[in-house]
Amino acid sequence: MTTDLTAPPGAPSEFDRDITVSPDGADHVGTMSDGWRVGGGINGGFQLSLIGNAIRASLPSHPDPIAVSAYYVSPAVAGPVRAVVRPQRVGGRTATVSADLRQGEDVRLTVLATYGDLDAFPTDDVRTTAEPVVLPPRDQCVPNTMAPDEVKAMAPFTQRFAMLFHPDEVGWALGQPSGRGQISAWFRLADDREPDPLSLLMAVDALPPVTFDLGLPGWAPTVELSAHVRAKPAPGWLRLRHRTRNVAGGMFEEDCEVWDSQDRLVAQSRQLALLPQTR
Amino acid sequence: MTTDLTAPPGAPSEFDRDITVSPDGADHVGTMSDGWRVGGGINGGFQLSLIGNAIRASLPSHPDPIAVSAYYVSPAVAGPVRAVVRPQRVGGRTATVSADLRQGEDVRLTVLATYGDLDAFPTDDVRTTAEPVVLPPRDQCVPNTMAPDEVKAMAPFTQRFAMLFHPDEVGWALGQPSGRGQISAWFRLADDREPDPLSLLMAVDALPPVTFDLGLPGWAPTVELSAHVRAKPAPGWLRLRHRTRNVAGGMFEEDCEVWDSQDRLVAQSRQLALLPQTR
Repeated sequence: MTTDLTAPPGAPSEFDRDITVSPDGADHVGTMSDGWRVGGGINGGFQLSLIGNAIRASLPSHPDPIAVSAYYVSPAVAGPVRAVVRPQRVGGRTATVSADLRQGEDVRLTVLATYGDLDAFPTDDVRTTAEPVVLPPRDQCVPNTMAPDEVKAMAPFTQRFAMLFHPDEVGWALGQPSGRGQISAWFRLADDREPDPLSLLMAVDALPPVTFDLGLPGWAPTVELSAHVRAKPAPGWLRLRHRTRNVAGGMFEEDCEVWDSQDRLVAQSRQLALLPQTR
Repeated sequence: MTTDLTAPPGAPSEFDRDITVSPDGADHVGTMSDGWRVGGGINGGFQLSLIGNAIRASLPSHPDPIAVSAYYVSPAVAGPVRAVVRPQRVGGRTATVSADLRQGEDVRLTVLATYGDLDAFPTDDVRTTAEPVVLPPRDQCVPNTMAPDEVKAMAPFTQRFAMLFHPDEVGWALGQPSGRGQISAWFRLADDREPDPLSLLMAVDALPPVTFDLGLPGWAPTVELSAHVRAKPAPGWLRLRHRTRNVAGGMFEEDCEVWDSQDRLVAQSRQLALLPQTR
């Protein structure tokens, strides 16, 4: 971790600064920073964190995202953004809303989401057969800071965090994809911003498309992404893994798992995406 | 398969009859039959097929569900139902809508969905590491017709199809759950109604909750269910499998895979559900 990832004491992290929203009538407004751009559009996971923050602001009694399903309607660009949140059902344990992220007249993202208070969920009964993502020590992984300058310019998003790739799963960067359909990495937000349920919504869409590892570079447009936040993450580095098991019909599913520093599976997501058209 | 599952020649199957909707202004209306009830509410998968049929009727150029994300807002009951479909983006390859299923003033189900024409999607590039569900021959499986009368009365839904359980994964019915978190079965709609993309939306929610196999009987309320239809299924029996890998925080994720008679993975779904409260 280089020192330029650390914010001055007392300053908000760039992530917190950039997901900030303020009320405007019944809506919330904010600004999408170009720093979260990948190619021609703002990263979909970051958009989820931003709209997730607006939903949180609209539901004080249900502060945490539990399930969020996102459909991306048009590419989001840097600039002002408006979040429109419509409650569907506000119950004791959970609340469900629909919400849109808009720029001018255009809807960028529409979501359905269920929120709750993760601190109020039971923590005693854990039965998991899922196995933690195993990564070599961080100093043996391949940091995103090694990306070529043209990648950093095309995707400033990749500079918003430290991402340390499993050395066996980064061959695609050198034109030698493994073909297995798996990419995993250590992950930590810039400014050492600790993970929380909102940042997990971005983390599940932070890795490169798993199709890179199948020798299919290029943009893989998301059809649908659903994220489940299963627990509040402990402070420290996260481990992320993308996997696909079925490339067919010009589409693939991409599963992401997020494990925290206490070896808990804190978030799961699945997206359906279209194969890159660049072949 | 008993003969009472076969409709008279020329008659619509009960599934087609029950998902029928007709236009009413900009909406579509239909009737939910008590035959699809499980306990106090109509099965969520059946509701998806019904709203899926209304979306299909609203999008003639995009006939097939590709991705559907469902949030259940209140329990649906037998009786009249109204589907309200709002297009979000209608493109060449795909169209995205939001839609609600309502009874009177109450929203039962709200969804986001992307539709397309599966016949227009490429079929040549298939790379799958997912392994087909393996089941013993059907005459060695345990049919749902063996369910006790009180189960049939509590859940008439279970009589809408033939479901032949893997004999190693049905111990829960005798108070001896395997504890593995897996239930798989052969599946075929009543009247020998052949599978199609709409019926797959019901199939992904047809098996008992996978928590039965963990020794946690009882109703497991769905927080969110997203289904992906990956190909048009071939005629014949389907194989379904429910699995969970992470029970934590009072919730569990339940993945369903649907394989067709040609050994293709035709649908995947994941739902997040709350653990039964009956312990």
